[in-house]
Amino acid sequence: MNAAIISIGNELLSGQENTNASWLAQSLTTNGINVNKIYTISDDKNEIKRTLDDSFSEADILIMTGGLGPTKDDITKSTLCQYFGCGIRISESAYRNIEKIFNDRGLPVTLANKKQAEVPDIAKTIPNLQGTAPGLWFDNGIKTLVAMPGVPFEMKMMFENFIIPQLNVKYNLPRIISRTILTLGIGESFLSDLIAPWEKSIPAGIKLAYLPSPGLVKLRLTGSDEENFQMENIIENLITNLQQIIPEYIFGYDNQKLECIVGSLLVNKNATLSIAESCTGGFLSHLITSCPGSSEYYKGSVISYANEAKADLLKIDKSIIETKGAVSDEVVRAMAVNARKLFKTDYSIATTGVAGPGGGSTAKPVGTVWIGVATPVNVTARMYLLGENRDVNINRASVNALNMLRKELLKS
Amino acid sequence: MNAAIISIGNELLSGQENTNASWLAQSLTTNGINVNKIYTISDDKNEIKRTLDDSFSEADILIMTGGLGPTKDDITKSTLCQYFGCGIRISESAYRNIEKIFNDRGLPVTLANKKQAEVPDIAKTIPNLQGTAPGLWFDNGIKTLVAMPGVPFEMKMMFENFIIPQLNVKYNLPRIISRTILTLGIGESFLSDLIAPWEKSIPAGIKLAYLPSPGLVKLRLTGSDEENFQMENIIENLITNLQQIIPEYIFGYDNQKLECIVGSLLVNKNATLSIAESCTGGFLSHLITSCPGSSEYYKGSVISYANEAKADLLKIDKSIIETKGAVSDEVVRAMAVNARKLFKTDYSIATTGVAGPGGGSTAKPVGTVWIGVATPVNVTARMYLLGENRDVNINRASVNALNMLRKELLKS
Repeated sequence: MNAAIISIGNELLSGQENTNASWLAQSLTTNGINVNKIYTISDDKNEIKRTLDDSFSEADILIMTGGLGPTKDDITKSTLCQYFGCGIRISESAYRNIEKIFNDRGLPVTLANKKQAEVPDIAKTIPNLQGTAPGLWFDNGIKTLVAMPGVPFEMKMMFENFIIPQLNVKYNLPRIISRTILTLGIGESFLSDLIAPWEKSIPAGIKLAYLPSPGLVKLRLTGSDEENFQMENIIENLITNLQQIIPEYIFGYDNQKLECIVGSLLVNKNATLSIAESCTGGFLSHLITSCPGSSEYYKGSVISYANEAKADLLKIDKSIIETKGAVSDEVVRAMAVNARKLFKTDYSIATTGVAGPGGGSTAKPVGTVWIGVATPVNVTARMYLLGENRDVNINRASVNALNMLRKELLKS
Repeated sequence: MNAAIISIGNELLSGQENTNASWLAQSLTTNGINVNKIYTISDDKNEIKRTLDDSFSEADILIMTGGLGPTKDDITKSTLCQYFGCGIRISESAYRNIEKIFNDRGLPVTLANKKQAEVPDIAKTIPNLQGTAPGLWFDNGIKTLVAMPGVPFEMKMMFENFIIPQLNVKYNLPRIISRTILTLGIGESFLSDLIAPWEKSIPAGIKLAYLPSPGLVKLRLTGSDEENFQMENIIENLITNLQQIIPEYIFGYDNQKLECIVGSLLVNKNATLSIAESCTGGFLSHLITSCPGSSEYYKGSVISYANEAKADLLKIDKSIIETKGAVSDEVVRAMAVNARKLFKTDYSIATTGVAGPGGGSTAKPVGTVWIGVATPVNVTARMYLLGENRDVNINRASVNALNMLRKELLKS
């Protein structure tokens, strides 16, 4: 089953993010409907008609959003009527819904809002529990076109409660199995070289997608369980085989987050964590505390951005900072060890580096980052050479720090 | 001048947000190029060719992203070669760039990465200062097609530094005047009601767009300066009028960031800042340190997530924490005052609250956040009642904390 998404709205063509389309794409995909194209177009009759022609030739299901409101530039409904050559009727249920919304707010129903109950006579209306514009369902027995308002929370509720169930009834949607393998510490191209033989072993009918995100690469396997309910096993076997090829790079699966995986490992050990950050400037602590329940294992951080803070709060010998430099093996180890003592925790992570754009030197160029991990039994430190972009460096340094801690937690 | 954006990538059709397209739409619009359609399509040869046919018939400039990487499913380059019927050449400059990136990281250049220097022989290459895949510029004298990698930071730098200047040379783009007014502390619909009369005063030819982002609303005015170079003045007058209607909600303009505005105010005062965070867990410090040059005024933070850290590091009287609770006026004031002393700074911000999902009570439900600001002359504290979503609460608490500090910095 193929779908096209058509997002209508001038604002989407001048910079507003199209969050509706990505939400719909995810929902359709996980319900077994393949999205083969997303069109983002202007509030323009001819453009809408041209896009309807194109997408009807390519897809079974057309999902439109936007242009159903009560204002002058909302022309989706009248354009659909022209396109299908149909008349207009008043929807009783839509009218009662509009009346109720206005009554609840103690307001009279305006003419513009009354007109929202006018719907194409060949369309079924779809209830809008959150607003005044009803959704529209066009169906010629084979293809389906659904038009929904563009207000995200109205659209989402309508889609989940009414559209997906009706699509299920009409198309008897397949069960989709989708698993994501999360890797870290290897770039997309090296990973692709390394797992090329495994990739060749993937049977037809299962799709592999590389999903790069900052600092990591996600591999998603997707298949539809049509006949013998074997898809789950087939994909599970592929994952087992992959684990044997790249055990050191896989850190999790599906929607897991590295920072929360580290958190779970700490919980399992009944262990606590503290952090000493310099170049990552709070981002590493933010990642750790973004996991609900992190107060169970995370005690706190010192962000010692200035050298005085490294000396005063983290009690690092000024002479070490002077002789070795703030970005050094010695300082990062001292930061980790002393944070561990200061917060009385079992583990501690420390970062110090040159995030950029300023502060680099020939010996320590922008992107040089030292990361240290102190555990109950030892201290390890490692230098990373990252890139030139400040944001990316902060992100990558934090991800690498979490991964170093994860490896230490798996060891003992 | 009309442009179409073509985003290529299977991941965009299964739910990943297409941030590249909205960024490009904004950049093109503000440079005087009208975006008339955005296509989001799969990594599929026939789909790419069909979309090229469609968009060449509709637009003067085609901007493509994605599918230029080194893996098997990156087929944009070979498809463009087939489409235009051209051969392949090795780009010397692209090869040197790839070599440099790998050498800098101490890694060997893999075969897959070498192949990234192969480019269509009719295309100019566009330097990629951040990654290995060069951009491609196709030009038949009338229409232009630009293909860029899909990695956002690589694409953005390439587009700003090379593509926009070259489009300007080729098409002699009109001078577009675009100003953005940044507001904080008022929702979109209330703002819209409040400024409705002002909106009506906007002359034809100037477009107003509402651009909502987390915690703030941006208003963008855009006009093209075609004849008498008066557009700048007209827009400037509109902004002056708006300032008189909503002075308390405007915090900045254009690409300014609240955290860097606060930074500039500190620099102007030659003042320093420290932070004591609890519920924001490092995010507030991360915002401050995301501004290049923040080490000039920011000294450091204590993230006192556990109550022991509030007592041990920030020297907060345990009896206050016990009697008033960690989320209280008294504790947030003590956090701000003591952080200011500890780091020997002029200003300090503190946050303590219930980010959720756990930890709420009847008296202090999830979303209760206290923010304190200590200055050289006083301490202020305020309670906010935010929402139920942990991420949103962390974000909003940080934005409100920055805004409180901004107001204090403007006072003295």
